[in-house]
Amino acid sequence: MKLVAVGTVAFDSIETPFAKQEKVIGGAATYITLTASHFVDSSGLVSVVGEDFPTDFLAEMKSRGIDQEGLEIKKGEKSFFWSGKYHLDMNSRDTLVTDLNVLATFDPKVPASYTDAPVLLLGNLVPAVQSSVLDQFPTRPALVIMDTMNFWMDVAWDDLMAVIKRVDVLTINDEEARQMSKEHSLVKAAQKILKMGPKYLIIKKGEHGALLFHENQVFFAPALPLEEVVDPTGAGDTFAGGFAGYLAKTQNFSFENMKRAIIVGSAMASYTCEKFGPERLLEINQDDINKRVAEFVSLVNFDIELV
Amino acid sequence: MKLVAVGTVAFDSIETPFAKQEKVIGGAATYITLTASHFVDSSGLVSVVGEDFPTDFLAEMKSRGIDQEGLEIKKGEKSFFWSGKYHLDMNSRDTLVTDLNVLATFDPKVPASYTDAPVLLLGNLVPAVQSSVLDQFPTRPALVIMDTMNFWMDVAWDDLMAVIKRVDVLTINDEEARQMSKEHSLVKAAQKILKMGPKYLIIKKGEHGALLFHENQVFFAPALPLEEVVDPTGAGDTFAGGFAGYLAKTQNFSFENMKRAIIVGSAMASYTCEKFGPERLLEINQDDINKRVAEFVSLVNFDIELV
Repeated sequence: MKLVAVGTVAFDSIETPFAKQEKVIGGAATYITLTASHFVDSSGLVSVVGEDFPTDFLAEMKSRGIDQEGLEIKKGEKSFFWSGKYHLDMNSRDTLVTDLNVLATFDPKVPASYTDAPVLLLGNLVPAVQSSVLDQFPTRPALVIMDTMNFWMDVAWDDLMAVIKRVDVLTINDEEARQMSKEHSLVKAAQKILKMGPKYLIIKKGEHGALLFHENQVFFAPALPLEEVVDPTGAGDTFAGGFAGYLAKTQNFSFENMKRAIIVGSAMASYTCEKFGPERLLEINQDDINKRVAEFVSLVNFDIELV
Repeated sequence: MKLVAVGTVAFDSIETPFAKQEKVIGGAATYITLTASHFVDSSGLVSVVGEDFPTDFLAEMKSRGIDQEGLEIKKGEKSFFWSGKYHLDMNSRDTLVTDLNVLATFDPKVPASYTDAPVLLLGNLVPAVQSSVLDQFPTRPALVIMDTMNFWMDVAWDDLMAVIKRVDVLTINDEEARQMSKEHSLVKAAQKILKMGPKYLIIKKGEHGALLFHENQVFFAPALPLEEVVDPTGAGDTFAGGFAGYLAKTQNFSFENMKRAIIVGSAMASYTCEKFGPERLLEINQDDINKRVAEFVSLVNFDIELV
């Protein structure tokens, strides 16, 4: 097993200024593992769903090497449900409904067969739950990547501080970085957050790209300018899945290789935005991915002599 | 003469969430020519000021090779004055005061000695006035770069359409590109605007960088993430001045060289943001510029094999 992802598997109802779709398959761990499956043959999923979650979709995931020993299916209960509405800029959204359902009592159990995975991805969950997942690994995975959100900064600051000290890479968005550090400048924010524990910090800026900070180094990857963004839901999780999947495949956790992993994550995220839900992730193949990575190279590459 | 800039030379009063400065020297042509003076020995300024404009500042500009035969000084009148207040994000602002003063009757006269310049930069002015400047060149300059703003889209659409057909490079910001094209996607917006006339389009996104479009090619340069932005006034004009100055110096107007010019423009703009007004442009030297360009290389450069 090359990679383990812990997080939600869920339903989303999504409204954009241009279209609407009810009960699309979603959840952070869904996007992460489907994206990573383009890079690694076997991964492990730690999550929980209700009896309402489609078994054919779980079978599709299994056929892509996503092991489900860590997936609990709760009889007679309903899966986590989120509903949101995007603003005209498609870069911000309002949450309309959050029905925790099975997630309310989620107590992740990491199967023994998952514990030798070199890469662990902790999706956005209660910080104490993220810690409990780490506790279940007899030996800490070589690379631990963690996502979180502003809500936990408000209600579980101490638990959050405890868990981010134990991870290698923290991924948050620009507003969350500002809230966490109380700094407006992302450069100053990153300096403060790196002192809180994580060795690497990725600040996601949606359509404005992503920044990777490590010690006094910084790397920037833009988002691909798209003709049409149909649905950005899951783009951040796809980014994380591509980042983690590429690192799990190459087994090189250096800053230089993380730059490449960020480009790969950005390329994957650009595909997710092209259709509702994770649909594009099921359609694309290795050629598509290489084509998109090549577009990133031509988008940002230049050679320059000193002026 | 390598480059001619037509535009405002003015005073600005600037308020940011952190500081305030009254009657700072400003104006598009001020920033453009001061920036370009780091790349070309001689440039020409076509503008107008009142009797109130400090002669020592004009002498400073002259010492940097900025010829002022095209600068009209109107006795007994006052220079153009703009006052604005930045929002907390420092990426958007409200205009508080616009006193046209001498600008109200500005009728630019291009001295004969300027008309062999290969690069012409038309700053944001009444579109019909921009056309009248072009008319004064017996032979069209090899590269014509033009800036404009949303106001002219509202009140002088036909004149604007007439002048953009005559230029090579149009520079506008993201909101202006959306207004001009009636498209939200910047990719679609660029496709439409390129059909309106200009061969190259630069969409400036402030702290989120800039995009260069040409036929079906696209290049992206980020803004340098800064620890502190003191005053972004003039950053866009500095960007244009660095872009034009680098092209005027290298005399290579290919897409590949424009990529480099955009990086140079971004590097120069990052300096302008570090202090109020054009102060930093007077302090920096060739070493500083090379150092900053090198920071851009490390910010965006990566090497990747196909995945």
